[in-house]
Amino acid sequence: MVVTVVYLIVVYDMRADRTRLMLNFLRKYLTHVQNSVFEGEVTEGDLETIRNHTESLLNPEESVIIYRVGSAQYVDRTVIGDDPTDDARFL
Amino acid sequence: MVVTVVYLIVVYDMRADRTRLMLNFLRKYLTHVQNSVFEGEVTEGDLETIRNHTESLLNPEESVIIYRVGSAQYVDRTVIGDDPTDDARFL
Repeated sequence: MVVTVVYLIVVYDMRADRTRLMLNFLRKYLTHVQNSVFEGEVTEGDLETIRNHTESLLNPEESVIIYRVGSAQYVDRTVIGDDPTDDARFL
Repeated sequence: MVVTVVYLIVVYDMRADRTRLMLNFLRKYLTHVQNSVFEGEVTEGDLETIRNHTESLLNPEESVIIYRVGSAQYVDRTVIGDDPTDDARFL
């Protein structure tokens, strides 16, 4: 069995008082890098779970965008300003 | 002269009452795809301008993350829920 791993950047837009649900779910799979942005390497199976579950958490007018790249090496990442991952809330 | 073009995903986290400055600036170069997310193809020169100018717009505890990939073809993009780009505000 071959397990394919992909690199994801996930951004969401939800009503502020509802984001906790999304945060708690995405934290299980990815790293929290900015207020409403997560990143990380997951299997294709996890990607499917993330797609389905994030959809179930959304209300009308809310959205999630999942960017998928083959590997982290294809993405160059620059943080400008205050890197939120330096903050303990993001650990 | 060779002009190198790169594909960017730009996400920012700013105080809600200050985002207008960032929106107006990024709109000149990129497509607005979600509340605080922009995407698009720019030259290396534009990328440098975007880096410098976004930095000048930030207050402490605010941040911008710029993801850069060689080309849009390396990124697979899935929108879940309400695609904000269907909304005229995003045109």
